[in-house]
Amino acid sequence: MTALPRRATVAQRLARLGLTLPTAAVPVGAYVPALRTGVHVWTSGQLPFVAGRLPQTGTVGRDVTADEAAQAARTAALNAVAAVAQVLAAESGDAPVEALDRVVRVVKVTGFVASDPGFTAQPAVLDAASTLLHEVFGDAGVHVRSAVGVAVLPLGSPVEVELVVETR
Amino acid sequence: MTALPRRATVAQRLARLGLTLPTAAVPVGAYVPALRTGVHVWTSGQLPFVAGRLPQTGTVGRDVTADEAAQAARTAALNAVAAVAQVLAAESGDAPVEALDRVVRVVKVTGFVASDPGFTAQPAVLDAASTLLHEVFGDAGVHVRSAVGVAVLPLGSPVEVELVVETR
Amino acid sequence: MTALPRRATVAQRLARLGLTLPTAAVPVGAYVPALRTGVHVWTSGQLPFVAGRLPQTGTVGRDVTADEAAQAARTAALNAVAAVAQVLAAESGDAPVEALDRVVRVVKVTGFVASDPGFTAQPAVLDAASTLLHEVFGDAGVHVRSAVGVAVLPLGSPVEVELVVETR
Repeated sequence: MTALPRRATVAQRLARLGLTLPTAAVPVGAYVPALRTGVHVWTSGQLPFVAGRLPQTGTVGRDVTADEAAQAARTAALNAVAAVAQVLAAESGDAPVEALDRVVRVVKVTGFVASDPGFTAQPAVLDAASTLLHEVFGDAGVHVRSAVGVAVLPLGSPVEVELVVETR
Repeated sequence: MTALPRRATVAQRLARLGLTLPTAAVPVGAYVPALRTGVHVWTSGQLPFVAGRLPQTGTVGRDVTADEAAQAARTAALNAVAAVAQVLAAESGDAPVEALDRVVRVVKVTGFVASDPGFTAQPAVLDAASTLLHEVFGDAGVHVRSAVGVAVLPLGSPVEVELVVETR
Repeated sequence: MTALPRRATVAQRLARLGLTLPTAAVPVGAYVPALRTGVHVWTSGQLPFVAGRLPQTGTVGRDVTADEAAQAARTAALNAVAAVAQVLAAESGDAPVEALDRVVRVVKVTGFVASDPGFTAQPAVLDAASTLLHEVFGDAGVHVRSAVGVAVLPLGSPVEVELVVETR
């Protein structure tokens, strides 16, 4: 791969990763995918939908492997980025992927992992989300994070990821 | 029912719903029900107390039905609104219900549902909280939301709901 | 003990408590312990590490007693304070413990307790974290809080505590 310019755009970074920004997932209830308050955009908890469906359901450490859960966390994080992009694009009229250049930092990632009681590698699962955010936003992708193992998630999803980001 | 004016007050909306704003619940520990930071008011996790007690305890999908949990989520959300009102009223000297007209948007709802591992309809449970917020605040009630199924909640509560709201 | 001055510094309060501020824990993944956004510092979920290891692992109400979990919550809260201090010290060049005097209020504590399904005293566990914050920050330690019982936490930790604080 050719080197990215030091100040690469999000579009350049996504292209290099071979990723396409999905459209924001339709909420599974009476809420919105993301919204602005002050300089921050907050997202709803995002599930690892691919084209509107969950590729896999179940509990990590029993029905779902750690590697599969990591891939799901990466997908959920990309969906959260799409939700942010939708808000920013609506504000500016830019294309969603271009609007993402207004993110100055990812503030917080909260990741819930539907976990078998014996599964304690939630950080490894969420690292896939964190890495995606670093890849997409570069230095602006640095964030704080909480990773938690829960009993069960909506629709049987193995993971759920929410974001708070700061924008210019 | 007669139509509400387009810019109805919270008091008008509550009256139409037949709801009375409860007093903010006394915290079950060393914290406060809600507080202001900047333009936001954050609440503590609210349990579905009615007159100081939980009408029902247990795990949703086993001891508690989805409908019962939805009613509990609605109650917890109303208690969270009461916690916000208490902060706003203390600031302005207005009556709590009148102080709520200073909410310009509900930002975030986080809802925890004590869930049997086979129960995956957390979004349907939390929709009752989201709907209450739309009913009470109108357009200002739009929010992002995370819904999570957890092992167990304080005092055996079936649900716990926390809010972040933006105020003028 | 001699009385503290009404406006005691954090250093004075810690000394009176016989506590030493730990160094911020190294994250167990691709994120940072704490960061600033606007007037707030947000921390990552903090585990009760003591000198880099968890003194105890397991589920509260089965492997870990409520008293042991409370001690762990106190330790995790102190680690969260250390994470805040690290950010503030890097900004100002002050020693970490002195930099903490810039905290004007602890806004939010979220506490996750790895809980046996029959254990419902999460608030009592988290009170140890809340009390530590009151002891360290005085009136600025007042906060909102959510306490949740989850299936399992990273590395088998019995508790995880995250903070949002407001600074001057």
